[in-house]
Amino acid sequence: MLRYPIVNQIEPGSFAPRSSIEQVEEGNTLAPKFDAAGLIPVVCTDYKSGELLMHGYMNEEALRKTIETGEAHYYSRSRKALWHKGATSGLVQKIKEFRIDDDQDCVWIRVEVLSSGASCHVGYRSCFYRAVPINPSSKKFSEIKLEYLESEKVFDPKEVYGDAPNPTIL
Amino acid sequence: MLRYPIVNQIEPGSFAPRSSIEQVEEGNTLAPKFDAAGLIPVVCTDYKSGELLMHGYMNEEALRKTIETGEAHYYSRSRKALWHKGATSGLVQKIKEFRIDDDQDCVWIRVEVLSSGASCHVGYRSCFYRAVPINPSSKKFSEIKLEYLESEKVFDPKEVYGDAPNPTIL
Repeated sequence: MLRYPIVNQIEPGSFAPRSSIEQVEEGNTLAPKFDAAGLIPVVCTDYKSGELLMHGYMNEEALRKTIETGEAHYYSRSRKALWHKGATSGLVQKIKEFRIDDDQDCVWIRVEVLSSGASCHVGYRSCFYRAVPINPSSKKFSEIKLEYLESEKVFDPKEVYGDAPNPTIL
Repeated sequence: MLRYPIVNQIEPGSFAPRSSIEQVEEGNTLAPKFDAAGLIPVVCTDYKSGELLMHGYMNEEALRKTIETGEAHYYSRSRKALWHKGATSGLVQKIKEFRIDDDQDCVWIRVEVLSSGASCHVGYRSCFYRAVPINPSSKKFSEIKLEYLESEKVFDPKEVYGDAPNPTIL
């Protein structure tokens, strides 16, 4: 059952095989490398501000759906399922540009976020709302204090997600 | 033997333990989560342009060295060793801002790159020099053609790295 808008359904099938370093690094063939768990890391930035919004993972299906639909699909490691970002929250990520790196084991999506524009399940715009001080005054790593860079949440997670389990794993 | 400039050597010791979701997400304690291989993914962007330069990994030692020295240290999965970025190439990454995400299992470093300003071992400024077309005209994933976004290399990898083995793994 399809739960996402298919714009241009591409014929099922694998990505191209990885045959040489030259092909992977210097060619124009899309030949992504998935790790032992079948995942590829995804860097997601805001198309306008350039801010890093989130870091996630795609499996082969999520990568295909993202390319087909132009909306970010991830693989949720906590829920162990395909995850169409925004399906619950309305915070859909429209792909403005999609890049892959030199050895094709990481992808970068530059997105426009619908609705409030936030991407973080805690309620902030970016998942990266805290800074780590460099060369801190504390002499113990366990005493380093993070600094907040976003002072207010964009949305209330309880209102948006209700009683859904928190994806953070200790 | 120390091979990197220690600015402010912090007392050895572990980061704070992860005791609750609230502490990890809403607190100001640095309590990073390393994966089963002892690594945490790193997103590295150019401080001025905002461009994604590279995606890598730190182990606990690399994370400590980065915080202590203000220069990016990674863990090289291909060489299985601590990697002070720029030690060979001169393309040192000076940390301008260091952030961590909501569940503290990913870090974002915003850097100024010394020398030519490039960060990609293939010779480009960014590792993400190719785009993947969204909703492509080809109906097969194996026929998708990448588009080059950087037309010229910033440096010649052979001049910089000589005969060092290529880190890309097929």
